[in-house]
Amino acid sequence: MSAPTPDRKILIPGRIMSGEMAEQPAVLRRILDRGAPRIRAVAAKVAARNPRFVLLTARGTSDNAALYAKYLIEVLLGKPAGLTSMSTTTAYGATPDLTDCLVITVSQSGGSPDLVASTRAAREAGAITVAVTNNPESPLAEVSEFHIDVLAGPEKALPATKTYTAELLALYLFVEGLRGGDGSAAEVLPELAEGILARGAEVKALAGRYRFAERMVITSRGYGYPTAREAALKLMETSYIPALAYSGADLLHGPLAMVDNISPVIAIVTEGRGGEALQPVLDRLRGRGADLVVIGPQAQVDAASAGFALPTKGVAEEVQPILEILPLQMLAYEVTIARGQDPDAPRALAKVTETH
Amino acid sequence: MSAPTPDRKILIPGRIMSGEMAEQPAVLRRILDRGAPRIRAVAAKVAARNPRFVLLTARGTSDNAALYAKYLIEVLLGKPAGLTSMSTTTAYGATPDLTDCLVITVSQSGGSPDLVASTRAAREAGAITVAVTNNPESPLAEVSEFHIDVLAGPEKALPATKTYTAELLALYLFVEGLRGGDGSAAEVLPELAEGILARGAEVKALAGRYRFAERMVITSRGYGYPTAREAALKLMETSYIPALAYSGADLLHGPLAMVDNISPVIAIVTEGRGGEALQPVLDRLRGRGADLVVIGPQAQVDAASAGFALPTKGVAEEVQPILEILPLQMLAYEVTIARGQDPDAPRALAKVTETH
Repeated sequence: MSAPTPDRKILIPGRIMSGEMAEQPAVLRRILDRGAPRIRAVAAKVAARNPRFVLLTARGTSDNAALYAKYLIEVLLGKPAGLTSMSTTTAYGATPDLTDCLVITVSQSGGSPDLVASTRAAREAGAITVAVTNNPESPLAEVSEFHIDVLAGPEKALPATKTYTAELLALYLFVEGLRGGDGSAAEVLPELAEGILARGAEVKALAGRYRFAERMVITSRGYGYPTAREAALKLMETSYIPALAYSGADLLHGPLAMVDNISPVIAIVTEGRGGEALQPVLDRLRGRGADLVVIGPQAQVDAASAGFALPTKGVAEEVQPILEILPLQMLAYEVTIARGQDPDAPRALAKVTETH
Repeated sequence: MSAPTPDRKILIPGRIMSGEMAEQPAVLRRILDRGAPRIRAVAAKVAARNPRFVLLTARGTSDNAALYAKYLIEVLLGKPAGLTSMSTTTAYGATPDLTDCLVITVSQSGGSPDLVASTRAAREAGAITVAVTNNPESPLAEVSEFHIDVLAGPEKALPATKTYTAELLALYLFVEGLRGGDGSAAEVLPELAEGILARGAEVKALAGRYRFAERMVITSRGYGYPTAREAALKLMETSYIPALAYSGADLLHGPLAMVDNISPVIAIVTEGRGGEALQPVLDRLRGRGADLVVIGPQAQVDAASAGFALPTKGVAEEVQPILEILPLQMLAYEVTIARGQDPDAPRALAKVTETH
C-alpha cells in the first residue's frame, strides 16, 4: 500500500512474492504438525453445539478461501451454507436471528474494520463465531468466540499467496474436525506442493503465451471453482490482465459468446466429480477452437492446447484446490515479469500512469 | 442459441432486444396489477411456515436477480440467506438437511435440468420450495411446491432484459409479502421506467465513450451491487467487452490496481445507504483520475466525468435496482451497435471468427 521502505527494498522484481510462494510447503507442514490439534479442539467445541447452517464472511483472496469452505461444508458436512453480503450489516444495519448459526470469518490480517463489525454483530445475534486469520492478536480474533491461526508467518507481498493455501488447509482441517474426520487426506500436500513449486521452468514457458493477452477466461466446476476465482484475482492484481472467472455451467450460458481464439481459456480440472462435470464445457470450448490450457491430470493436459499436469492421482478431491492454485500463482508471477512489471509493486505502475 | 429462424429474422440489428427493453414498463404494470395478489397469497403461505433461513438458486441473469433478493431478505426480512453452489448437489450429491429452509429458484425458462434437479432434491430434503419463472408450465414450476409467474411474456432476445426487471419486482413483492408489507413502494416504477427508457439519446451519447474500450469496471454497494453484476453480464453478452463487476469494498482491495485512465469505471450510486457507503470508493476513483461514469442521482452525476441521472428522489432504496439497470441495458445495446455488432445475434460474430 505504501512506498517501498528499507525492509522491502525491491532488488529483484517479484522477490517478495516468489519468496512467499516458496514457503508454502513449510507452512502447510506447520499447520499439519502444530496447528491441527488446536483446530480439532475448536471444531469439537463447535460440533457439540450442532449448528444448523453456516455463514462465511471474507473479502478478496480470503473470500475465495471462504467459497472453498462453503463447498466443504455442503458436500462433506451436509449443512447449508452461504457467503454473507457484508453491507447488509455494515451499511443497512440488518440484524438477522443467528441462533444455531455458525459464522466463519476469514481474513489474513484480521484487521479490517467491517469484518470486525459484522462478526461482532453476528455474535450478538446469537451466532457461534469462528475467526480464521494469520494474526491471533488481531481485533477479529479478539471479537470472535473461537480463533484459528493459519500460522503462515508475516505476509509482505501485496498479492496473497501463502496465506491463501494456509487458509484452505486450516478450513479443510476445521470442517474435517466438525464431522469427526481425521484430515489425513492432507498429509500428502506439503511434499506434492514442493514438487509443483520446483517446476518453475514449465510455468515460465506457459507464461509466454499470455504475455500479450488482453483478457483471459478461467473456468472450473465444483471444488476447483474457488481456484478459478483466486487465479483470476491473482492475475489481475499482478499483471492487470482482466481475467474473468466462471463456473463451467455459467460459462455455457451468456459469456461463452466472448470466448474464442481471441480469449484464451484456462480450465482447472479437478480429478474427480468436479472434473467430470466440467467435461461438456471442455468439449464445447475445444469445438469453438478456444486456446485451452488445462491445469489438471496429465490426460486432460494432453487433450488441451497446453497445460500443467498436477500430481493428483490418489489425492482426495476436496484437498486438490490446495495444489491447483500453486501453478496459477506462479503463472501470475511469470506473466507479470514477462510483461516487464513487478509483481511486488502492483500499484507502482498505476502511480506512474497517474502522473501523465 | 440456433441460427436465425423465420420468426426472428434480423432486419434491424438489435430489433428484438430493443423491443423487449421497451416492454418493461408494461410488464412491471402487469405484475403490480395481475401478479401481486397471487404473489401475496404464496408469501402468506410461506410466512405461516416461518422459515429460519433462505437459499437462492439461479444462473446467469437470474442469479443477479437472486442476489438482489438476498439483500432484500437480509435487510427487510432479517433472515440469513445464501446463494447455493448448485454443483454440490448435482455433481457431488450433497444432501443437507433443509428443514425450516426456504429455497427460492429463479429461472426465466424454468427448464434448466440442473435447476430442476437441485430444486427437487431441496424439496425432498425438507425445504419449502418456491420457483420464480416466466413459464408456469415449466418443469421447474412443476417440481416446486409454490410457483411465482413473472408474467413477462415470451423473451426471444438472447440477452435477457424484461425478464430480469420482472424477476426483481416479483421477488420484491414476495419478500414484502413475507414480512406483511404492502409493496406500495413499487407503484411508481412503471411510470419512472417509461421516463428512463425515453432517454435513448442520452445513452447513445454515453455509448460513444466505450466504443473502443478494451475493458470496463463496474462497481456499486448494497442494493446496487446486483445491478453492477447484471450490467457487466449484459455488456459482455452483447459487446464482448470484458466487464468486471466489484462491490466497492472489494474494489478497494486488490483490483483497484487495475483501474486507471486505461479502465473506465461505471459506478451505480443508489440513493440511500448503499450510495453513502460507496462514497469513499468514488473519492478514491476520482483521486486516481479514473474515467468515472455515474448512474445515480443528479448531484452524483455532476461530480463524475459523465453519467445518467436517475429519478430516484423519494423512491425507496430497495426498489431502485429495478430502475438502475434500465440505462445499463440500453448502454449495452448502444455500445454493441456502435461497435458494428448485432445485440440480437451475439453468437454470430463468434461463429464467423471460428471459421478462420
